[in-house]
Amino acid sequence: MSEDILNNNYVYWMEAKEGSNSDIVISSRVRLARNLNNLPFPHLLNEEKGLHTINTIKNAWEKSPRENLKDMTLFTFNQLTNLDRQILVEKHLISPNHAASNTAYNGLLVNEQGSLAIMINEEDHLRIQCFLPGLQLSEALNCAQTVDDALEENLRLAFDENMGFLTSCPTNTGTGMRASVMIHLPAFVITGQINYLYQNVSQLGMTVRGLYGEGTEAIGNMFQLSNQVTLGQTEEDIRSKLDSIAGQIVQQERMLREKLSNEMRYQLEDRIGRAYGILTNARVITSNEAITLLSDVRLGVDIGILKGINAFALNELLVAIRPAHLQKKAGREMESFERDVKRAEVIKEKLLREKRQGEDQDV
Amino acid sequence: MSEDILNNNYVYWMEAKEGSNSDIVISSRVRLARNLNNLPFPHLLNEEKGLHTINTIKNAWEKSPRENLKDMTLFTFNQLTNLDRQILVEKHLISPNHAASNTAYNGLLVNEQGSLAIMINEEDHLRIQCFLPGLQLSEALNCAQTVDDALEENLRLAFDENMGFLTSCPTNTGTGMRASVMIHLPAFVITGQINYLYQNVSQLGMTVRGLYGEGTEAIGNMFQLSNQVTLGQTEEDIRSKLDSIAGQIVQQERMLREKLSNEMRYQLEDRIGRAYGILTNARVITSNEAITLLSDVRLGVDIGILKGINAFALNELLVAIRPAHLQKKAGREMESFERDVKRAEVIKEKLLREKRQGEDQDV
Repeated sequence: MSEDILNNNYVYWMEAKEGSNSDIVISSRVRLARNLNNLPFPHLLNEEKGLHTINTIKNAWEKSPRENLKDMTLFTFNQLTNLDRQILVEKHLISPNHAASNTAYNGLLVNEQGSLAIMINEEDHLRIQCFLPGLQLSEALNCAQTVDDALEENLRLAFDENMGFLTSCPTNTGTGMRASVMIHLPAFVITGQINYLYQNVSQLGMTVRGLYGEGTEAIGNMFQLSNQVTLGQTEEDIRSKLDSIAGQIVQQERMLREKLSNEMRYQLEDRIGRAYGILTNARVITSNEAITLLSDVRLGVDIGILKGINAFALNELLVAIRPAHLQKKAGREMESFERDVKRAEVIKEKLLREKRQGEDQDV
Repeated sequence: MSEDILNNNYVYWMEAKEGSNSDIVISSRVRLARNLNNLPFPHLLNEEKGLHTINTIKNAWEKSPRENLKDMTLFTFNQLTNLDRQILVEKHLISPNHAASNTAYNGLLVNEQGSLAIMINEEDHLRIQCFLPGLQLSEALNCAQTVDDALEENLRLAFDENMGFLTSCPTNTGTGMRASVMIHLPAFVITGQINYLYQNVSQLGMTVRGLYGEGTEAIGNMFQLSNQVTLGQTEEDIRSKLDSIAGQIVQQERMLREKLSNEMRYQLEDRIGRAYGILTNARVITSNEAITLLSDVRLGVDIGILKGINAFALNELLVAIRPAHLQKKAGREMESFERDVKRAEVIKEKLLREKRQGEDQDV
């Protein structure tokens, strides 16, 4: 049941072992922005037209015979609590802006695993998103296009022969596509190379952002790399360019990690050991500190300094320690300090369980 | 054999369970400054008179029938390496100034356990010191006086009917006695009460100093409390006054710990947990950081937040992690960074062994 997605810590992009290069690339995402013909863009919708929009989309979805549209649930935001919508934000399935709405015509169509999520009446009528673990942009693009084709069979979309797909914000017009990868770049940061990366990447028409998208800070050495241009290029061009840049960044990060391992072994082991020591012994911890220290632990796991911890567990923690997930788990609202206490508990429990399981496997 | 004292981490004052109030008072010390009659004070001695001094003392010691003078060894500093003299400083048996000398007439008479140590030709010809664990000023005074009496049987001391014992520095004249306790006051520091303590104590004719005596910084929340006045009071007066002040400080520290435990339980557990986590996982650690974190661990042990770690182990670590002891253990000179690596190793090993033993005892 897709309802589970509101009650567990799981999303498919956490399955590190299913993706390639997942020691560095956490997840890949492709989203396509689409709008229905002859209807105002979401920010101009009144209730009547809003409901018309969502019902039109619902019908198109229900009529589609495609396999990958079968196992989905439609949540309308008037049915969801604020906490539930935050749960979806923390899983990266909807945007913070989208979560701010609670109307009957704002909604999310999502499959059980959370690998396919279609935001309804966010900035555009439809934002078809596919999320996969590791570096899998082709697969994500393929997934999004299949869904797009399926819906298009029963929808009339706003499309211009010259411009391509029309979107609420002109920067998305054309393909309506944004492809992005979430990458973990501790060695870039430790060695100070990250500033060059910011510059180089923007010269190549790409953008680097923080963990929670536009305007958010890069914490835990996590960066979202995505295309800036959507017009005048094919979907495949955009995908292939991002794939190639991401591949180069992965190579460079791997080289820098190697360099750090060789030249600053003790300091690196110290940094990673301390992070692990704090995370398994703290009693109170903020989200930012936890994400920062989890980055060090992840690096330790990736380069073999820390044994027995799965990348899946670290991905899961990234979501499980966020405020809404903590409150969902506790079954009640919690003040900031209470959450810091609960967060420390969740992390400690998870890391120690991982270690025990790792040790059991060693035997 | 007393030679062991140069090769192990042990001194008797570490035996926390043998002392009273040793959750707060690490050790008690009484020293008596004495000088031989008709000989210049040490800083004015030439080699001939220096050798005469030390030989006179040696004879008096050898002639004494007293039991507690039997099991002692005389080290002359020309026989000891610089590293060995630093070992003695780190065990608090000689002063840093004394360690700077390497002549045949500078020396130390010390018993096997390091509870009795007589510095020869430091600032005075004789400095008789007794070191005991916990708050045991009466016992320490008794020990020092017995030794003093024994030596006096065969020595003519510089003594003035009006002034009392004459000493190289006039501030020691009279009883020649300094009594001190090493106290661990984390709750005074955390609650900011420590500054009042400094003021109050000095109004009572006492001095508060850091871990390694005069002019050293108070690290790890360790303070040395001692009498300032040596003249015009009996030994028993000095002892009893210090005993009473130390007792009051102990009570207050205990009350402040209770208060912290009740009012800031999570923060306290967090602080202690993090310290333990870092100490058992760091790969590189400076002496100052280690002593600071060991203070938090000690507090955790004392108030029952951390189980299975003995106060003895923590006392031993305070000495074992100092530069000379680390180098002795490694069997070679080490640069600062190498020592930081070795120190992290020693601490981790010790704390984890303590924990395993603690857990075995629980079963």
